[in-house]
Amino acid sequence: MKQQQNILIIGAGLCGSLLALRLGQRGYNVTVYEMRPDLRKTDISAGRSINLAFSDRGNKAMKLVGIEDKVKALCIPMNGRMIHDTEGNTFLSNYSGRDHEYINSISRGELNGLLLTEAEKHDNVTIHFNKKCKSVDFEHTTARFRDYQTKDEFVEDADIIIATDGAGSALRRSYYLERKFLFSFSQDYLTHGYKELSILPTETGDYKTYKNALHIWPRGDFMVIALPNLDGSFTVTLFLSYDEGAYNFNNLTTPEIVTEFFQKEFPDALELMPNLIEDFFGNPTAPLGTVKCSPWHYKGNTLLMGDSAHAIVPFYGQGMNASFEDVVEFDKVLDEHEGNWDTIFSEYEKTRKKDTDAIADLAIDNFHEMKGHVGQAIFQEKRKIEMALEKEFPEDYSSKYSLVTFNEDIGYREAMLKGRAQDKAILNLLTDGIISTEDDLKDILDKVITETDAILQDDRIARLR
Amino acid sequence: MKQQQNILIIGAGLCGSLLALRLGQRGYNVTVYEMRPDLRKTDISAGRSINLAFSDRGNKAMKLVGIEDKVKALCIPMNGRMIHDTEGNTFLSNYSGRDHEYINSISRGELNGLLLTEAEKHDNVTIHFNKKCKSVDFEHTTARFRDYQTKDEFVEDADIIIATDGAGSALRRSYYLERKFLFSFSQDYLTHGYKELSILPTETGDYKTYKNALHIWPRGDFMVIALPNLDGSFTVTLFLSYDEGAYNFNNLTTPEIVTEFFQKEFPDALELMPNLIEDFFGNPTAPLGTVKCSPWHYKGNTLLMGDSAHAIVPFYGQGMNASFEDVVEFDKVLDEHEGNWDTIFSEYEKTRKKDTDAIADLAIDNFHEMKGHVGQAIFQEKRKIEMALEKEFPEDYSSKYSLVTFNEDIGYREAMLKGRAQDKAILNLLTDGIISTEDDLKDILDKVITETDAILQDDRIARLR
Repeated sequence: MKQQQNILIIGAGLCGSLLALRLGQRGYNVTVYEMRPDLRKTDISAGRSINLAFSDRGNKAMKLVGIEDKVKALCIPMNGRMIHDTEGNTFLSNYSGRDHEYINSISRGELNGLLLTEAEKHDNVTIHFNKKCKSVDFEHTTARFRDYQTKDEFVEDADIIIATDGAGSALRRSYYLERKFLFSFSQDYLTHGYKELSILPTETGDYKTYKNALHIWPRGDFMVIALPNLDGSFTVTLFLSYDEGAYNFNNLTTPEIVTEFFQKEFPDALELMPNLIEDFFGNPTAPLGTVKCSPWHYKGNTLLMGDSAHAIVPFYGQGMNASFEDVVEFDKVLDEHEGNWDTIFSEYEKTRKKDTDAIADLAIDNFHEMKGHVGQAIFQEKRKIEMALEKEFPEDYSSKYSLVTFNEDIGYREAMLKGRAQDKAILNLLTDGIISTEDDLKDILDKVITETDAILQDDRIARLR
Repeated sequence: MKQQQNILIIGAGLCGSLLALRLGQRGYNVTVYEMRPDLRKTDISAGRSINLAFSDRGNKAMKLVGIEDKVKALCIPMNGRMIHDTEGNTFLSNYSGRDHEYINSISRGELNGLLLTEAEKHDNVTIHFNKKCKSVDFEHTTARFRDYQTKDEFVEDADIIIATDGAGSALRRSYYLERKFLFSFSQDYLTHGYKELSILPTETGDYKTYKNALHIWPRGDFMVIALPNLDGSFTVTLFLSYDEGAYNFNNLTTPEIVTEFFQKEFPDALELMPNLIEDFFGNPTAPLGTVKCSPWHYKGNTLLMGDSAHAIVPFYGQGMNASFEDVVEFDKVLDEHEGNWDTIFSEYEKTRKKDTDAIADLAIDNFHEMKGHVGQAIFQEKRKIEMALEKEFPEDYSSKYSLVTFNEDIGYREAMLKGRAQDKAILNLLTDGIISTEDDLKDILDKVITETDAILQDDRIARLR
């Protein structure tokens, strides 16, 4: 019976192509419409990050669809943050005290292409490109598309429609504008935007700086980061306020002032970027926004998934991983309720939304942590203690970063609550002089666990989240 | 010079008419357009609450415009919450341990009419009714209106436009839809809706139940409240889930089931409401939503104020008071920067938004407190201790409720941070057996203050809000 069901997926980005692959594996008739050209045949950056952080939650989805090894070949491991100060000094802050825990830099285009190719291996999966969704009639489960090449408009009918069409989702817009039910919705922009730059390879094709790290130049109110690519380059991103501070996107209007800004704040990066001015004025400045909404579904007809349901800022490196995990969680609910879409969609939102809300908030937290806190003494002491605890007691301690990034068997919300309590415990124990980086580690571990539990218990009693 | 400036206000509700009055007093040329008929001449309930809670922050605004005494004549003092259990037992829980601190029930229509009349006393203030704003061109500071009587559309030009047109604001919609700048926006609906009912006066025009209280029938997942009117009636509101629980708005579809629900849950209220069925099926069910957004202004041209900038749920009785306080805060910024609208609008949002965000969150907190916590032993013990502290140490202790409601000289955000920490302190001290309702009050006060300070300090160190 289920083979006869027609599923229409809007958007063949990372989430949509993975979903198409998985639903194809499950035997559904899957049709995907993507507004962009086929990225395997055309060179399009589409204004989005060229590389992304890929970690354990994303990998769980790759295991589910059986392409873990193929994806691994595209990965560059990043073991920690390489912090660069204004003097050009660097130090590496590992992501975990456990050696097997690291994140990866991966090409968005390569990974998306792989997922498309794997999906198309299934005869019951068809992917159409250059067809943009204009609106969705969620009462009648039809969607209107415009063909970019023929300019024709046409309507597609399906048994169910799943929108994986990103932060600007056409289905979400239809939910919002039609006012047929109470739709809670938020879009929140940071005061900062971002611009992509690059560190090109050396003439011999080598990396100009250390390959296996996520480089950060934290400057309090702004920062630069860099992630490695397989071709020896790094994709560099500047995060900066639109209009506040001595230097901002609104006043960086000439090559002279851009060079002055980098000379003053990022001299060691500037040395690696002779192409800075060309990149800076050639690439767009883009906003950083968080989108949350509810409900994600309308009856058993339509569903939002991935960024269309929960777009987040990039600072935890979890955007793609969260969208991939959506597919894993959806697949679990399918196992339990296959055949009853209304129940599937309700249950999926009920179990999933608390976690995507949490990663959205964690990503905002990390914006502040990355641009500022990582450069401060007390946060560095905390980090040092956490690395030592993870190394010495790998079974008994995981930092918030580890809980979020490397513990794919617990949800983001649980990771957030425990992780925040741990952070609060360590920072307060350090400030009150109850622990110090010189103390016996077992003693520190016991105190941190006791204090963390007390914090969680106090919050529970006061009915705080 | 300022007399020559033309200010257009969209909406002559509570906030708009107060703003018109104040700006009229300051000498501006003020024109107000209101979509509804003049409520002093027509009987319109407009689907909104008939009476409202009026307290110190609102009164501060009445003092500013010099009509405190006229407003006082419209007020019915409510000294506390009268809690009704399912057995029909009642007990009064005062709002404060200080006798002079109470809230008031006031008629929306009477108060709005008074403000309109006071505003129109100024020759430089003109108010037009039956003219609905369709959109605002915030680049050119013009607004398009439709006249409900002639059906004509026309465009009005002004030096500045201030939108006080409520939760469905036309200016806010223009900000959102035109996408000319990054506009952060959220609309969040509770799972509960509300319906207005009534307790009519006795045949001799007396109150059927105690007049000087806000009556609450808390039932955990839902509740009924009642506020007195000057004519001897009470306006009753049922807050109930749309679709969850044994009884909800979706399944209360017949007179029999509505009567059964009230018989079971609110038997003493039902006795006072022979008109229940007529009210229930005659009045609409309305949603409960929170709106936040930013920026509130576009350059020095246009500004959102009152519910158009920050609509909140009614559970703290602060919606009107917050909007009135907007005018007080705006007036202060005018004193400092008169003549420079761009600076006025920026400074106003900078100082005000943190407080309106806070009262929005506090109102959600109180939804849970009113429908559930007020009926629970530990919350009643906390409340008992707080009343005793306020009575015994009126200078040294104010509960969260008092900080929010009766301490108009501190902002909502400060009240929230301190109030939440105090609540957490008392609940945890009670749970841990460190204080009890039998202890010496001075001893309790010292422990609560110490614990509150420790909580605030721990949060500061962990960079938590």
